[in-house]
Amino acid sequence: MGVRCGRVEHYANAKLVEEKVFKDPVHRYIHVRDQVIWDLIATKEFQRLRRIRQLGTTYLVFHGAEHSRFNHSLGVYEIVRRITDDVFRGRSEWDEQERLLILCAALLHDLGHGPFSHAFETVFHTDHEYFTRQILLGNTEVNGVLRKVSEDFPDIVAQVIEKKYPNELVVSLISSQIDADRMDYLQRDAYYTGVSYGHFDMERILRVMRPREGKVIIKSSGMHAVEDYIMSRYQMYLQVYFHPVSRSAEVLLNNILKRAKQLNEEDYQFALEPTHFKAFFENSITIEDYLALDEYILLTYFQFWMKEKDPILSDLCSRFVNRKLFQYSNLNPEEEPERFNRLKDLFAQMGIDPEYYLYHDCTTDLPYDFYRTGKESTRLPIFLLMPNGEIRELSQESLIVDAIAGRIKSDHKVYFPKEILHDESIDANLRNELHKLIG
Amino acid sequence: MGVRCGRVEHYANAKLVEEKVFKDPVHRYIHVRDQVIWDLIATKEFQRLRRIRQLGTTYLVFHGAEHSRFNHSLGVYEIVRRITDDVFRGRSEWDEQERLLILCAALLHDLGHGPFSHAFETVFHTDHEYFTRQILLGNTEVNGVLRKVSEDFPDIVAQVIEKKYPNELVVSLISSQIDADRMDYLQRDAYYTGVSYGHFDMERILRVMRPREGKVIIKSSGMHAVEDYIMSRYQMYLQVYFHPVSRSAEVLLNNILKRAKQLNEEDYQFALEPTHFKAFFENSITIEDYLALDEYILLTYFQFWMKEKDPILSDLCSRFVNRKLFQYSNLNPEEEPERFNRLKDLFAQMGIDPEYYLYHDCTTDLPYDFYRTGKESTRLPIFLLMPNGEIRELSQESLIVDAIAGRIKSDHKVYFPKEILHDESIDANLRNELHKLIG
Amino acid sequence: MGVRCGRVEHYANAKLVEEKVFKDPVHRYIHVRDQVIWDLIATKEFQRLRRIRQLGTTYLVFHGAEHSRFNHSLGVYEIVRRITDDVFRGRSEWDEQERLLILCAALLHDLGHGPFSHAFETVFHTDHEYFTRQILLGNTEVNGVLRKVSEDFPDIVAQVIEKKYPNELVVSLISSQIDADRMDYLQRDAYYTGVSYGHFDMERILRVMRPREGKVIIKSSGMHAVEDYIMSRYQMYLQVYFHPVSRSAEVLLNNILKRAKQLNEEDYQFALEPTHFKAFFENSITIEDYLALDEYILLTYFQFWMKEKDPILSDLCSRFVNRKLFQYSNLNPEEEPERFNRLKDLFAQMGIDPEYYLYHDCTTDLPYDFYRTGKESTRLPIFLLMPNGEIRELSQESLIVDAIAGRIKSDHKVYFPKEILHDESIDANLRNELHKLIG
Amino acid sequence: MGVRCGRVEHYANAKLVEEKVFKDPVHRYIHVRDQVIWDLIATKEFQRLRRIRQLGTTYLVFHGAEHSRFNHSLGVYEIVRRITDDVFRGRSEWDEQERLLILCAALLHDLGHGPFSHAFETVFHTDHEYFTRQILLGNTEVNGVLRKVSEDFPDIVAQVIEKKYPNELVVSLISSQIDADRMDYLQRDAYYTGVSYGHFDMERILRVMRPREGKVIIKSSGMHAVEDYIMSRYQMYLQVYFHPVSRSAEVLLNNILKRAKQLNEEDYQFALEPTHFKAFFENSITIEDYLALDEYILLTYFQFWMKEKDPILSDLCSRFVNRKLFQYSNLNPEEEPERFNRLKDLFAQMGIDPEYYLYHDCTTDLPYDFYRTGKESTRLPIFLLMPNGEIRELSQESLIVDAIAGRIKSDHKVYFPKEILHDESIDANLRNELHKLIG
Repeated sequence: MGVRCGRVEHYANAKLVEEKVFKDPVHRYIHVRDQVIWDLIATKEFQRLRRIRQLGTTYLVFHGAEHSRFNHSLGVYEIVRRITDDVFRGRSEWDEQERLLILCAALLHDLGHGPFSHAFETVFHTDHEYFTRQILLGNTEVNGVLRKVSEDFPDIVAQVIEKKYPNELVVSLISSQIDADRMDYLQRDAYYTGVSYGHFDMERILRVMRPREGKVIIKSSGMHAVEDYIMSRYQMYLQVYFHPVSRSAEVLLNNILKRAKQLNEEDYQFALEPTHFKAFFENSITIEDYLALDEYILLTYFQFWMKEKDPILSDLCSRFVNRKLFQYSNLNPEEEPERFNRLKDLFAQMGIDPEYYLYHDCTTDLPYDFYRTGKESTRLPIFLLMPNGEIRELSQESLIVDAIAGRIKSDHKVYFPKEILHDESIDANLRNELHKLIG
Repeated sequence: MGVRCGRVEHYANAKLVEEKVFKDPVHRYIHVRDQVIWDLIATKEFQRLRRIRQLGTTYLVFHGAEHSRFNHSLGVYEIVRRITDDVFRGRSEWDEQERLLILCAALLHDLGHGPFSHAFETVFHTDHEYFTRQILLGNTEVNGVLRKVSEDFPDIVAQVIEKKYPNELVVSLISSQIDADRMDYLQRDAYYTGVSYGHFDMERILRVMRPREGKVIIKSSGMHAVEDYIMSRYQMYLQVYFHPVSRSAEVLLNNILKRAKQLNEEDYQFALEPTHFKAFFENSITIEDYLALDEYILLTYFQFWMKEKDPILSDLCSRFVNRKLFQYSNLNPEEEPERFNRLKDLFAQMGIDPEYYLYHDCTTDLPYDFYRTGKESTRLPIFLLMPNGEIRELSQESLIVDAIAGRIKSDHKVYFPKEILHDESIDANLRNELHKLIG
Repeated sequence: MGVRCGRVEHYANAKLVEEKVFKDPVHRYIHVRDQVIWDLIATKEFQRLRRIRQLGTTYLVFHGAEHSRFNHSLGVYEIVRRITDDVFRGRSEWDEQERLLILCAALLHDLGHGPFSHAFETVFHTDHEYFTRQILLGNTEVNGVLRKVSEDFPDIVAQVIEKKYPNELVVSLISSQIDADRMDYLQRDAYYTGVSYGHFDMERILRVMRPREGKVIIKSSGMHAVEDYIMSRYQMYLQVYFHPVSRSAEVLLNNILKRAKQLNEEDYQFALEPTHFKAFFENSITIEDYLALDEYILLTYFQFWMKEKDPILSDLCSRFVNRKLFQYSNLNPEEEPERFNRLKDLFAQMGIDPEYYLYHDCTTDLPYDFYRTGKESTRLPIFLLMPNGEIRELSQESLIVDAIAGRIKSDHKVYFPKEILHDESIDANLRNELHKLIG
Repeated sequence: MGVRCGRVEHYANAKLVEEKVFKDPVHRYIHVRDQVIWDLIATKEFQRLRRIRQLGTTYLVFHGAEHSRFNHSLGVYEIVRRITDDVFRGRSEWDEQERLLILCAALLHDLGHGPFSHAFETVFHTDHEYFTRQILLGNTEVNGVLRKVSEDFPDIVAQVIEKKYPNELVVSLISSQIDADRMDYLQRDAYYTGVSYGHFDMERILRVMRPREGKVIIKSSGMHAVEDYIMSRYQMYLQVYFHPVSRSAEVLLNNILKRAKQLNEEDYQFALEPTHFKAFFENSITIEDYLALDEYILLTYFQFWMKEKDPILSDLCSRFVNRKLFQYSNLNPEEEPERFNRLKDLFAQMGIDPEYYLYHDCTTDLPYDFYRTGKESTRLPIFLLMPNGEIRELSQESLIVDAIAGRIKSDHKVYFPKEILHDESIDANLRNELHKLIG
């Protein structure tokens, strides 16, 4: 036993003979010296993240945004590595023993993401956090590597990712209002889309981070760099993440999956048997089922389904693959239910199924916020360390952050195929009314 | 008829009500004002380029290199647009009538590329230039748009791309030693990989380009900017395009396709019928067959094939998908044929098929060169316009370019699975000899 | 007469044989095609701007900020050139006749700035706007060039710079809340200081600018880019322009000039006759006097004055030249007049003249604001053109801008030589009290 | 004594309570933790470097190049700090004891530079390396700080700067073909001028540097990054450092100083007594004399001298201050001595003193080379560490470096006032001949 423990400990501390680097456009280089990290990157579950885009359908608006979650995961790891190795090292409130744990959690935090997560989770009620735990604990290569550190290591890593680990300081490095996750994706998404937002002085923020009272605290001298970071988030959400055309592609995705599920329920005979989807249709998903899916598989199905006999599935897939997206109108069905209901009726009268061709989308349903305090938030807010030693929540000190905290307006839109506006096979009266309703 | 011609001419000159822009990380914005260009971008053949990566397997070494040919094609278009609209406009040797032609050719020059072109063309003897012409002239959306300009317009565009168009000036904008194609991809590939090479002063080069004697000539005051561009190419080829690990992934690709083709010839029963490959196996490829393939489809097949019974196909696919690449050794079989032959024998003795597990790769087989003059080159060299009006070829004037022109050494490597070096199930004597041979 | 008019008009439209460019780190290239602009740049009054720094004493905090007003003036010109040549050209509400006028005004808007303007104007009650007019209208090379355009052209250029020109559209290009002046200096100052603030998407802002109802209006689709610009200003003011250490150097400058003036009034015999200052001491300043001063001259005087017998002048100059700056304390004399008065008394008791060694500085006295609306502002606010054609003031639409508009807190500090805190030649009781008062 | 030694040692190792940073555009931040470094930066001799430009007259061509030697010196320090603290630390061939020594030498290596060094040294035969030693060893603030480390520390620092220190490894960090000096100035000069050359992957070069056999060796895997660095130098020299217009301003400087010296020899009565120059005219220069000069003082004298009665001095100064530079012609007097002599005669006939108005300038006289091997070079060449442990000189391995090593062509030009070409007061026959001769 002793020998085994010995080996186990040895592995946790094993260093590569020579540091390895990955060239990274955002952080210049990603540095790896730990054998554990190197082995995790080589697992097939981690390599699978190359086949899932970081920004889902955004590449259909910002053509540069073709980067994968693999990229981003390495970036989050690198930021956490710099915090632990350069900023926290040697500080009394930081326990060096937790270094490997947080590095692994940073690297693996997105491991359970599936293809086009948001749409997928909406239709099939899956949960990427649940699957992250399953992959960490199940019969996987990642689990094999982590267990070589210690038997309970996979579970501890899962706890950190799930924000259940007792030391909030460790958790907050990857899950708080100013964590490595957000700092990486803002910069990375800005880099790949090419937008000029998303820049902030991360060097400065890292330099003023302090482990204190079990949290990551920012020295108040860095407050303006943090404001800049919050503003970057605000701009990225409004300009990139909530972009209405990208949401339009999400609508198609959503409806494709919904239609396939519905057809399956109706015992429709698919020309290509939807093997990969069976477990999802039937809600009995194993880790293998889950890991077998990626965006390459999905887009391949969609291309097969373009030739299915069902006109709705075929049309929706064709639209997605060839980027013939839905149009949008600023109608808010919550404020104008009658107008929206009349629209539905009109669609039905025109012979167009509103279930799949008329979609009400609202940004508050999206998995983003840019700064929110109070009980509705699950993320730790940002705390400042004042010169007098006091700790204060950011929005109490910052004019700008206070102004925008939690006040984002939800944006309602209704999506529909624009072709019907000009489809001369449709009764002119109906079309006229449609024009008026749609605005 | 007259009316029809009228409409046709009108379409060639039609402008969008408001200029459209694409946010681009390399050129900041891509500007589109021509209806024809806008319509071409919306075709499904052009949208398909989103599903083919610009740098094939390079993303397995430089994780940022996940960008598609869609990106690059827009970039080439934008550079040509700037040359025609900002630099050449109004110059006596430039005919404004050829503007739309060259814009279309720039946008569409890569249209015939298939998934992982190089490996694909090696195994199936296809030719992306041939398919570019087929797509331009065949029953496609792209053809539909081009024909609205004029009946012969698709053919003229094809001629420009094929370098057969009589006006060399037009051809050389997208096919010469310093064309928009290269200027875009060097910068774009550098941006996405994150390497520091690939930067040069394109603004300056554009400013000193002149249409002269049916060619694009560079004013000699811009010679140093051109030297910098040539050096960027040199560095990108050695550091990125010829990277041995990326070539290792190419080797796998090549052998996967070769194996599948071989199995098909042997009437092997695939668990998943390789529908998309049938035409390629049988060398009777229609445009539809060709366009149906993309890297999403390929990677989906590879994932299916990981479960095929044939151990070679299954293993090779698994290696590619999960990035368990071959190792390389600097052996040059042309110089040491006996050593290489002995290696092959050893592999056979070990029960490992050298046909699929031992691969000799040489960079001169790769579709790149960084500057070559003389008859072996198919590209127009770079000409300088001297202050006295004389025109001279670049390498006669530039010390640096002369030093490197055409002198790149071909790099020979032999690829093999590194696991066999440590596979204890293999006879120790054989492994010892292997270690010695492999160096 | 006719002939002369002919020549005059000819000069206004004269183009250089070949466009000239200046390499510029911020805008990449500054393009000049007009002979008038080329000739203005060559005048000695414009070349003098090379000897006046853009950011006064800021280089003593941000060592990169050594750039001159010459730089900035070219930058403002280039932005205006792009607006008129690329954005406004051809739009019905823009009169091409005003192009040269606004280009000249942009280039020359800072012509009347003297060395370390702010301190200079405070002590000598000069006004750079007044001197701009004098230089434009007086016997100068600049005037000679402008008069070649037309007799009244110098005066019209002055009117634009003074915001008295009737066409507000022209004025607002260089004097409004989002003018070329601010857009250049924010980016330029960020570039040279190296701070990460100051970036915003100027390309986008330029693209959405529209001449409308005699003003520059921003299409509301560009609102977020404008918000980003406002935030950049906010950050640059707080982080760079209001930096307390840079203000400390300003305090020294102010007191040096005040002391020299005072000594002159007391008929003190300077070892080096302050020839260049005579006119300023006596408040009878000619254009020649004004133009003869620059920061090179000032720093030379300061080096001479380091050796003057007057201990105060000598000490203050020595501090400035060798960067031995004053310390600051967060005391606000307006809120705590007694504490401040007691400080003054203490200084006097210690034999340290509070007139020159204790300074109350407040940022609201500084010539900056980041966005202010209402009657207190002399700058046109930013107007948005809504999709429905309505025009709205920015802070009514933007959450963020509304939050910060006009709400900047003034920051009070008291500056003093830190050495006295530890000067053992001073009575210990006095020093103890000083420590307590200063906080 | 023991106590004193104790204190002395303590000072060498003293760390600031909190690390200080300078915001730097090139290296992002300059980090200072050593009390010695902090104190050196605060000395007046080091602060004086703010008043001497890094690139002399280059700002008259590239307006952005207004940065000072202060900037650059901090940059060299930072690069060396990163090498010693991040790259060399812990390696067996690096002695941690030499860390402070090399940091001080890096920071202070340019301390002895005077205003417009090159012209100054040409006319007055001064030597900045000699004065560096004088400042380090003389009665200066810098000497006071260094002596607190140990009595002989100033001398040891001087030895390193003079390349006489026995440990070549230490010397070569700041004086070799790939030292911190060059790596900083290439990047910094590129940044401030805005040219696109000057970029290379310093991160990579730093990572492959190794202390070996008393030298800094580059691992051969980094050869291409080094090639890129050599190419950057090549481009910067040809494009920026040798720019003919900047050399034209140097010609004026040279002739101004020469004229002033000549007038002094002729007992000319200067209206403003040239106090600061006396010691230089008489060649009896003390450290105080030397340190009293800077570019602010010089430009102030030039402005005074614009009003001197001597027409040559007055004219030359006026030209320099107001940037009315000389024209150049590509005549090489060494190849065409008769043509050049005839030119001189012509000038004399026209009443224009060729001594001050006709100048032969050659780039090989300039203090730059981009890569030279062999005995003519005083710099250590670049050595590569090959995979087999062998050490080879770079140009033996690199095609490109071999091509350009030591082969730069010297560029000859003749400078003269262009006005005489069009001066109608000069005899037309003379002018015609002039036109022909000048080409």
